[in-house]
Amino acid sequence: MTDSLTDLARELDQFAKDRDWQPFHSPKNLAAALAVEAGELLEHFQWMTEAQSRALAPDKRDAVGAEVSDVLLYLIQLSTALGIDPIAAAQAKLRVNALKYPVDRARGISRKYDEL
Amino acid sequence: MTDSLTDLARELDQFAKDRDWQPFHSPKNLAAALAVEAGELLEHFQWMTEAQSRALAPDKRDAVGAEVSDVLLYLIQLSTALGIDPIAAAQAKLRVNALKYPVDRARGISRKYDEL
Amino acid sequence: MTDSLTDLARELDQFAKDRDWQPFHSPKNLAAALAVEAGELLEHFQWMTEAQSRALAPDKRDAVGAEVSDVLLYLIQLSTALGIDPIAAAQAKLRVNALKYPVDRARGISRKYDEL
Amino acid sequence: MTDSLTDLARELDQFAKDRDWQPFHSPKNLAAALAVEAGELLEHFQWMTEAQSRALAPDKRDAVGAEVSDVLLYLIQLSTALGIDPIAAAQAKLRVNALKYPVDRARGISRKYDEL
Repeated sequence: MTDSLTDLARELDQFAKDRDWQPFHSPKNLAAALAVEAGELLEHFQWMTEAQSRALAPDKRDAVGAEVSDVLLYLIQLSTALGIDPIAAAQAKLRVNALKYPVDRARGISRKYDEL
Repeated sequence: MTDSLTDLARELDQFAKDRDWQPFHSPKNLAAALAVEAGELLEHFQWMTEAQSRALAPDKRDAVGAEVSDVLLYLIQLSTALGIDPIAAAQAKLRVNALKYPVDRARGISRKYDEL
Repeated sequence: MTDSLTDLARELDQFAKDRDWQPFHSPKNLAAALAVEAGELLEHFQWMTEAQSRALAPDKRDAVGAEVSDVLLYLIQLSTALGIDPIAAAQAKLRVNALKYPVDRARGISRKYDEL
Repeated sequence: MTDSLTDLARELDQFAKDRDWQPFHSPKNLAAALAVEAGELLEHFQWMTEAQSRALAPDKRDAVGAEVSDVLLYLIQLSTALGIDPIAAAQAKLRVNALKYPVDRARGISRKYDEL
């Protein structure tokens, strides 16, 4: 893990240690917590049109930002717990996606790669 | 957004532009996609014990890492679409959490702050 | 639980017993499995427009139906495990919602009851 | 759809019509709402041990029951919107699962059918 994510990871680790929360923070529980936060993030958008979601009022954007944080914080803690470098994993995934979705076949199409 | 996340954000933006995927990438759709990936991440752990989740076999860990990437990639794209800096938002959230969960009251307790 | 749901609940219970799956089927795990299936259900719709989601092709509708089943099967098993009657609970919830969302104030509005 | 679920479906349909909510209730939005509720259901269990989840206090059980209702209510509305009979679909799925997970091979094992 690199840069500012590393700092966040270290801070989160200390935060949990200071509170003796490691017994609760099994990867299984962290993955559940992340899914819960992903649901709270989605809740903000559930009745919006797509157009409305592209033009959020400032206070709504801040509320969404807080949920984005929660997802990120659990993602970092899960990565730390499992020894995963999320940035390196994401870069690797992006390279895989570039092969799965070649520009000339995927342009303007939202289907999965195995249905292109 | 800072450091390596900025690079990823730029690459992802170009990736979507090259494929004319922006019409699909409304914040609403990105939030749904993130929730779907969070579910796929959780699927790996659903029948495990917590102890098993702390001791993943290497191939399982890699599979989990790929799902972590997918969550992160959508989180970055959603942040870009909304003009949110996820690192700054996470740092702010961490400061809020420090106030909500003072060390002396939260130690060893998994309850929410309003039930402490 | 009533009617055909009772039959399903009984069949599911026997299904799990025949396979010695009760040790895996803690309410916690069933709730995680349900969330995973809800994600798979949502995946079918994630890049669709709302209009497209109202006009599914027959094979897509069947695929969605299979995910609806999976959610329902875990919902029933979770209810059995906790001694909850989901139909009675849903009827009670509907009565609560009728008070929270009076017709004259909620008409045509998707906001939550505390923002009406 | 049969029995008491049919009654609930009819009531929910009228509830939405009385409030002019059909424009919000596209299958896409209902699937998102269901995933959000599945997250709220999971939240109750995220830091519990499996043993704790098998022995809920009565007030916790009621709170979980309310979330079970919310999931069921959206499941019914989605089924109505798509013309799916959830009971028939669940019965069909159960027959498929019986073939995928034969008793003698699946006993005591939580792996997916293609890994048995």
